[in-house]
Amino acid sequence: MRQPPDRTERRRLTHVSRGGRPRMVDVSEKPMTARRAVAEAFVTLEQETLTAIIDGQTTKGDVLTVAEMAGVMGAKKTSELIPLCHPIALTDIVVEITPERAGPGVRIRATAATVGQTGVEMEALTAASVAALTVYDMVKGVDRSAAIRDVRLLEKSGGKSGEWRRPADGAAPPSRAPQKQSSFRKRPDR
Amino acid sequence: MRQPPDRTERRRLTHVSRGGRPRMVDVSEKPMTARRAVAEAFVTLEQETLTAIIDGQTTKGDVLTVAEMAGVMGAKKTSELIPLCHPIALTDIVVEITPERAGPGVRIRATAATVGQTGVEMEALTAASVAALTVYDMVKGVDRSAAIRDVRLLEKSGGKSGEWRRPADGAAPPSRAPQKQSSFRKRPDR
Amino acid sequence: MRQPPDRTERRRLTHVSRGGRPRMVDVSEKPMTARRAVAEAFVTLEQETLTAIIDGQTTKGDVLTVAEMAGVMGAKKTSELIPLCHPIALTDIVVEITPERAGPGVRIRATAATVGQTGVEMEALTAASVAALTVYDMVKGVDRSAAIRDVRLLEKSGGKSGEWRRPADGAAPPSRAPQKQSSFRKRPDR
Amino acid sequence: MRQPPDRTERRRLTHVSRGGRPRMVDVSEKPMTARRAVAEAFVTLEQETLTAIIDGQTTKGDVLTVAEMAGVMGAKKTSELIPLCHPIALTDIVVEITPERAGPGVRIRATAATVGQTGVEMEALTAASVAALTVYDMVKGVDRSAAIRDVRLLEKSGGKSGEWRRPADGAAPPSRAPQKQSSFRKRPDR
Amino acid sequence: MRQPPDRTERRRLTHVSRGGRPRMVDVSEKPMTARRAVAEAFVTLEQETLTAIIDGQTTKGDVLTVAEMAGVMGAKKTSELIPLCHPIALTDIVVEITPERAGPGVRIRATAATVGQTGVEMEALTAASVAALTVYDMVKGVDRSAAIRDVRLLEKSGGKSGEWRRPADGAAPPSRAPQKQSSFRKRPDR
Amino acid sequence: MRQPPDRTERRRLTHVSRGGRPRMVDVSEKPMTARRAVAEAFVTLEQETLTAIIDGQTTKGDVLTVAEMAGVMGAKKTSELIPLCHPIALTDIVVEITPERAGPGVRIRATAATVGQTGVEMEALTAASVAALTVYDMVKGVDRSAAIRDVRLLEKSGGKSGEWRRPADGAAPPSRAPQKQSSFRKRPDR
Repeated sequence: MRQPPDRTERRRLTHVSRGGRPRMVDVSEKPMTARRAVAEAFVTLEQETLTAIIDGQTTKGDVLTVAEMAGVMGAKKTSELIPLCHPIALTDIVVEITPERAGPGVRIRATAATVGQTGVEMEALTAASVAALTVYDMVKGVDRSAAIRDVRLLEKSGGKSGEWRRPADGAAPPSRAPQKQSSFRKRPDR
Repeated sequence: MRQPPDRTERRRLTHVSRGGRPRMVDVSEKPMTARRAVAEAFVTLEQETLTAIIDGQTTKGDVLTVAEMAGVMGAKKTSELIPLCHPIALTDIVVEITPERAGPGVRIRATAATVGQTGVEMEALTAASVAALTVYDMVKGVDRSAAIRDVRLLEKSGGKSGEWRRPADGAAPPSRAPQKQSSFRKRPDR
Repeated sequence: MRQPPDRTERRRLTHVSRGGRPRMVDVSEKPMTARRAVAEAFVTLEQETLTAIIDGQTTKGDVLTVAEMAGVMGAKKTSELIPLCHPIALTDIVVEITPERAGPGVRIRATAATVGQTGVEMEALTAASVAALTVYDMVKGVDRSAAIRDVRLLEKSGGKSGEWRRPADGAAPPSRAPQKQSSFRKRPDR
Repeated sequence: MRQPPDRTERRRLTHVSRGGRPRMVDVSEKPMTARRAVAEAFVTLEQETLTAIIDGQTTKGDVLTVAEMAGVMGAKKTSELIPLCHPIALTDIVVEITPERAGPGVRIRATAATVGQTGVEMEALTAASVAALTVYDMVKGVDRSAAIRDVRLLEKSGGKSGEWRRPADGAAPPSRAPQKQSSFRKRPDR
Repeated sequence: MRQPPDRTERRRLTHVSRGGRPRMVDVSEKPMTARRAVAEAFVTLEQETLTAIIDGQTTKGDVLTVAEMAGVMGAKKTSELIPLCHPIALTDIVVEITPERAGPGVRIRATAATVGQTGVEMEALTAASVAALTVYDMVKGVDRSAAIRDVRLLEKSGGKSGEWRRPADGAAPPSRAPQKQSSFRKRPDR
Repeated sequence: MRQPPDRTERRRLTHVSRGGRPRMVDVSEKPMTARRAVAEAFVTLEQETLTAIIDGQTTKGDVLTVAEMAGVMGAKKTSELIPLCHPIALTDIVVEITPERAGPGVRIRATAATVGQTGVEMEALTAASVAALTVYDMVKGVDRSAAIRDVRLLEKSGGKSGEWRRPADGAAPPSRAPQKQSSFRKRPDR
């Protein structure tokens, strides 16, 4: 764990004003640029559940289409869900869900694009999350082990910070949440 | 991994009709019972980001309150987000976020309750997801390694299936999504 | 056409107060009963468009699933769309879309159910309308002749008025809108 | 019925990817142009119902205003209702409802405009549909024969395809939905 | 000004947990009872603006109907707007707007009812506020002095606390907001 | 009361067509300009309630943060709430709530900004109203005298009309709503 920097160097959250109040970032003066972001999520499933989904997929209906559509519609609700997100006129949203035998589970990949003053990371992540929740909803009656893992940004372009791509996983942070432990901030009765 | 059962024993998803079409579960004849569900999510952060949040929390504003509120409001939108979820008159929603040095990150715990014909798992999971996305949104400008992990149900009561509690983690499915690999279902151009 | 009754017998709209103001119907004292309604819509298409949909349906994706899901989600938004509709906790919604060579086009059938103080006609009709608009949206780039026809209630049960079923079409009102003619109520500039 | 063209000439739906998955059309690179669309709907009513509406209209309240406003507000919800529609910053929406003795019924005309990267057909059609549903809601207690007919686009301008105007009705497709017949695609239990 | 009570007697907000966190009130165990609430708002206008509204009202359209409908629809959105409000299945909402020469302005009166586990005060107040904002929106182009005053509860019945009626105005708190003064809680940069 | 002007001079509401129908203002041809608006609201409270809020604020949680966030999220819903408002891509929203001993109560100040074809007054006013309703909701269990007063615009810039600032209060309209009196427009039964 790195040593926290001196107070003067400390990170300041972009959504917190100097007075310490949460706030939206003012983008009024930012230029309009083409922006794109890609996020993913993974839903772990039991093998039999995955088989049931794939069966449904190929022989009859299209179970995953429901989740893909939910992801697209969820992306359009991002600024309603995330308090400090700006409303954005998305120009494209694609959500693709692919079954993977290793896991086993389904991998969700969401891409969002706009031409605007602010990025579309949250839209891509929201799309992935809502699609994952929708998969969970459809399997929960038969598979209680289902869980959503690794909702995260894969890449991002446009705006001042330019291109970014998630480094290969070797460099990534620890792969899952630690077991519950007592928190170090006391909150008596919650 | 268990052996998949014969075709006749195979799992049938509750949200798929016998004809293979995705559909809502008809709960018209179910009795009204008290139902409660608890879900959690974990957002991994860099240590410095966590420090910035805790600082913000205790000395000035209340960064985590924003995410907790977003979770509560998100729970109320569950049936708008998840296509096959029933609208539910929630009687209680609580979202609590606790920083954890191990991780490091923040742990989100969401509880939902109703008296109704259907469960509130999706409401608890949606609350946890939206709160996690909101934390991510507020730190993304300073911490690109942030990711949401382990959105999952912890417990559930009420309804026909009675009490359920997630078994201790030893028995849990593999802890994170496998690395990307080629999918075994071909979709030429997506 | 029947003779209009005397003024004193005239119909009074349920959503208009005695003073002539539009208003919601107060259902506070109505008992909770099981209610169900079925509505339909028809989208006329060119033959080639229908073929493209059926192709998409059977060999690859599931175009109609998107419209069915949109109908289900639209039903849940009924009270947001129709000003004087009560919010209702729907217990079931099903939307089924079937291609028909005669027409040619797709027929949409939507069923809504609840246990409540007010009926679900508007939910069934809204589901059918939104599904129809979604079909239209997906074909509009290739088929400008597409149109939505005959959004109407087929049957209804529950509540004080009991069972109702649309009579066979011989008895039905004239089958389509008359050609535009000058209106008999003048509104100078609209 | 025309012969379906060879595979290579076949229509490809704009909202279906080459791999057969439903998807939004990417408009990121389209120029911003002024766009306008006009749609209509017709609600057939019994003569007495129409009289009740006109009475309400002229002597006391303004029944049709409610439906016009619902149409305007519905247009603003288009991208929430139609899964693959882009969110659009509408610059104008007008909904006008006119009683017509021939029919008898009310004719709804909705106009939508924007300056943007994509058209506003769906917004005009959604406005007309929601206004029609609202009229239906207000008369349904006294008139079960009410039905919505002929929701369709009348004209459209802006964008690559330029001006379009619906041809006179002689050339139009058959005027109403055919009677129910057995579908040619089997879906056993839906 | 009354003397503040000792710490132990101090008021505890119902929406704050013992640990000091904002939270929803758990109503899971409350009985279902019939509940009703009435709220009002007043929009002050210049005399000429009021005349324009009355003219519009009686000779041609129905300007106030738009605001009344907006109030009804706003009431249905209460739990989306107010973070700690429960979703409620309203059984009745009425919004009535009356021009008043004294003021001059328009008085808005909103009534909400339900049969449920929690009260409908917020629904009545939200209806009144949204109707007031809508009146403001329609006059703002011609009347910059317009302002919304005195959004407040008039009466309330049902639930544990029974009937309540706002006392005659003599006993009411000071009639308007004091002029801006320096706050006694420092927030450096907001 | 001033004499109403001749008909030709009379005010015409911008949201009423020449034919007297309520309508949205067409902004299709307006240029994009930077726009900003500031609005305020005041919630009167009993002294003890104010003390409870301040206590909560400084020692434990952050009661006012909830209301500030609700205001920000409410601003993003303006065009859903106000029928004739255009949807706007807000670039900034800030809501600040400050306790004031004089009153006593809390003062809410909301700022909205965009770069667009229409102003953001309604967004600022909606943010202030929703924040005020949220404060009310959190104190209503302990303070029935609470009321919202003086929701009004403070300043506005951008667009054709340029800068505007509310004149000092001496010149302001009478400070609160007159007592209820019989209206001069009869509406028998509302």
